[in-house]
Amino acid sequence: MVGEINVIDLISFLGDELIDVCGDPRGVQIDGIVKTGSVGKRKLDWVNSSRLNKQQLAEKSLSTAVIVDGSVEMSTIMLDSNKVLLRVRSPRNAVGMIGNHFFVEKLSSFIHTTAVIDARASLPSSVFIGPNTVLGNCVLGERVVIHDKVTIADDVEIGNDVHIYSGAVLGTNGLGCYRNRMGSLQVFPHLGKLIIMDDVVIGANCSISRGSLSDTIIEEGTKINALCFIAHNCLIGKNVLITGSSMLNGSVQVGDNATIFSQVIIRDQARIGNNSIVGMGSVVTKDVPPNEVWIGNPARFLKKNDR
Amino acid sequence: MVGEINVIDLISFLGDELIDVCGDPRGVQIDGIVKTGSVGKRKLDWVNSSRLNKQQLAEKSLSTAVIVDGSVEMSTIMLDSNKVLLRVRSPRNAVGMIGNHFFVEKLSSFIHTTAVIDARASLPSSVFIGPNTVLGNCVLGERVVIHDKVTIADDVEIGNDVHIYSGAVLGTNGLGCYRNRMGSLQVFPHLGKLIIMDDVVIGANCSISRGSLSDTIIEEGTKINALCFIAHNCLIGKNVLITGSSMLNGSVQVGDNATIFSQVIIRDQARIGNNSIVGMGSVVTKDVPPNEVWIGNPARFLKKNDR
Amino acid sequence: MVGEINVIDLISFLGDELIDVCGDPRGVQIDGIVKTGSVGKRKLDWVNSSRLNKQQLAEKSLSTAVIVDGSVEMSTIMLDSNKVLLRVRSPRNAVGMIGNHFFVEKLSSFIHTTAVIDARASLPSSVFIGPNTVLGNCVLGERVVIHDKVTIADDVEIGNDVHIYSGAVLGTNGLGCYRNRMGSLQVFPHLGKLIIMDDVVIGANCSISRGSLSDTIIEEGTKINALCFIAHNCLIGKNVLITGSSMLNGSVQVGDNATIFSQVIIRDQARIGNNSIVGMGSVVTKDVPPNEVWIGNPARFLKKNDR
Repeated sequence: MVGEINVIDLISFLGDELIDVCGDPRGVQIDGIVKTGSVGKRKLDWVNSSRLNKQQLAEKSLSTAVIVDGSVEMSTIMLDSNKVLLRVRSPRNAVGMIGNHFFVEKLSSFIHTTAVIDARASLPSSVFIGPNTVLGNCVLGERVVIHDKVTIADDVEIGNDVHIYSGAVLGTNGLGCYRNRMGSLQVFPHLGKLIIMDDVVIGANCSISRGSLSDTIIEEGTKINALCFIAHNCLIGKNVLITGSSMLNGSVQVGDNATIFSQVIIRDQARIGNNSIVGMGSVVTKDVPPNEVWIGNPARFLKKNDR
Repeated sequence: MVGEINVIDLISFLGDELIDVCGDPRGVQIDGIVKTGSVGKRKLDWVNSSRLNKQQLAEKSLSTAVIVDGSVEMSTIMLDSNKVLLRVRSPRNAVGMIGNHFFVEKLSSFIHTTAVIDARASLPSSVFIGPNTVLGNCVLGERVVIHDKVTIADDVEIGNDVHIYSGAVLGTNGLGCYRNRMGSLQVFPHLGKLIIMDDVVIGANCSISRGSLSDTIIEEGTKINALCFIAHNCLIGKNVLITGSSMLNGSVQVGDNATIFSQVIIRDQARIGNNSIVGMGSVVTKDVPPNEVWIGNPARFLKKNDR
Repeated sequence: MVGEINVIDLISFLGDELIDVCGDPRGVQIDGIVKTGSVGKRKLDWVNSSRLNKQQLAEKSLSTAVIVDGSVEMSTIMLDSNKVLLRVRSPRNAVGMIGNHFFVEKLSSFIHTTAVIDARASLPSSVFIGPNTVLGNCVLGERVVIHDKVTIADDVEIGNDVHIYSGAVLGTNGLGCYRNRMGSLQVFPHLGKLIIMDDVVIGANCSISRGSLSDTIIEEGTKINALCFIAHNCLIGKNVLITGSSMLNGSVQVGDNATIFSQVIIRDQARIGNNSIVGMGSVVTKDVPPNEVWIGNPARFLKKNDR
């Protein structure tokens, strides 16, 4: 599906990410990018900055073109084998940029015939809507990609460049329940919106509830991995990472740049401060201040987050 | 979608829930009900009984009609601003009643053309079946609401007024597995039913298995929030609340009026007693007696539940 | 749906599993198989080897045909009531074999008209594809059963006799994210395959990601229960049991014959050794050696697994 790419073109694409190029890139081509060390001559190889023996890994690579950080030197072994070293500030970032730009298939604007779309829904012509997806009375921004069998209920507003994976259910009622005097469970009404801002990604089979009397809001750049449940009235800030199978109860607030690792549970009303980290499997029962790392059941302070 | 509502009509609707009315409700109308403190003149405001400064919140409300409990008094400030106080036994309950009755859109009986329904399925004309939902050889009660892309497999019986949200998968085989003498995994046959009784609510993307040799049963009034997994042969009593992302292994029994908070895991065969509470993130490895609160990993007795 | 079955036929079907038969099976028929002790005359009853009072349970059974292990003797009470005892090596295994063979409905090859199948997909005529299932550019083996509203994305390879339950999402991008120098979240490209080998079972509403630069692989005979999330690049060995609601982060490796109980979370890159067991609700933060049992948050060594 993707043909051959000139390393010369990678070099100009990398821009500021590139430190310098060692060797002669003219005429060198790659046709893929795969896992470190498993590559052949025509694949782009790379050495992550976190590896211990970076120089050796680069020298032993079977590939002609290798992405490394500035600590790796062009050696005579590499020169003799006509290697091209692309020295970059962050090899992981460079590989991510190249992979997403040159090798990930782009979904062009399209609405599958099996999608079921409410007549009141507002969606620009730039969106992608996969098979069997159901859209209620919602508003979608530009270039939104919604894969197959997603549910977008009524009163959901989605910004630009949002990406939603298969099976996600967005904007249905949560289950803010209370017991009445007789002890019976009453479902509190859900009348608020679900608002998802630009550049958000939502993973497969997530469930995100609309607000009850206020709104549920997910701000710009936040990424939520598969099988998470975000309950009514949650306020998730900008650029938050939630890495999968986590559960945020009603009215949780998560600050900008926070990271919630996998299968975390957060008590209703609790607040996670800006730039804080909650370790995987944690049970958060009280507020986590900004710039801290918390772990455990119940979650406790581990250290400051100096990132 | 909802027009204006006379406060006079709210008063007659509230019935026993109402203690008394202070001020003159005649001619006062509301057109919505939103979060405490964020309201304008035409919205119904309310002050939850758990708030500290209830009198002050009621006085400062921008709304003409405010729901409060019996501890809030009609003051001269309120009189001067022509406020109407609806004093009720439980403001939360009153708001819930009003919201559900006047503002939540009712789904009338309807079967979407894209629903795939087994010819043997038995469903009365009062049901609502959303797009892309798949019904096997099942029995549905009156006024059942099944949202879009739900799966109801064969041998599922659903009572009256049950509400099932998008993406739920009900009545498929679980995975009661055992290792045979060679160590290979064998799936135990699932031949039992899934029986869901009246007034149950099941959240988005839940998975509830049919029984293996007996039945899986969920009794009247129980509410199960999104992304829960209830395995084969579980017996869930009446009026149980399971608040999301929890996992009940095979043959778990949960007593009436119990509460299972979020992301709890319960060992197979374990029993949760009537009116007991399991705290969020708990790992229940043994039986929880009635009227107790347990938390932790592994879950341990915390206190009696005096509710 | 299933008629009457001669006990004589069960006997020949059981083969090596049978030790011997006590009583006269000629003319005895059963028409079902249900939970121990709840049976009537025409149902097959059985006594699990783990029960304490096996002899008594067998004697009190209302059924004519009872499956027991070799420790149960044919008594005069049984003789007088014309019971037939089928003595087997493992009653549970025998009941599993009989249930699956005689009573579980087989799904014959079939493609529902509402399935949405990419023109490039390769699928033999022996597969079963349920309603609203979406298949991308994938390869399916013989006799694969895919229930309704499953998603199989591009670049997924599925072996023979694989069984996938409703709502599963297989082969979509995971969310291998990293923060760039500005702190923004970048999604790492997902270019690898998802490879599922023979005899695997995947439960309802699971999400399994394709690889990023290498592949995600699930080997022969492994069973994964509902609502699990297996992230990019995971390598799951042969005959592994994952019992539900668990989350395996990126590049986790699980050895052959391992058992991951419910709602476990495993850190990225961690390895679970062959034949090891991780207890339910565990949070695995480091490698688990082979043949060990680990539990807790964080998970710790409990004992050797002598199985």
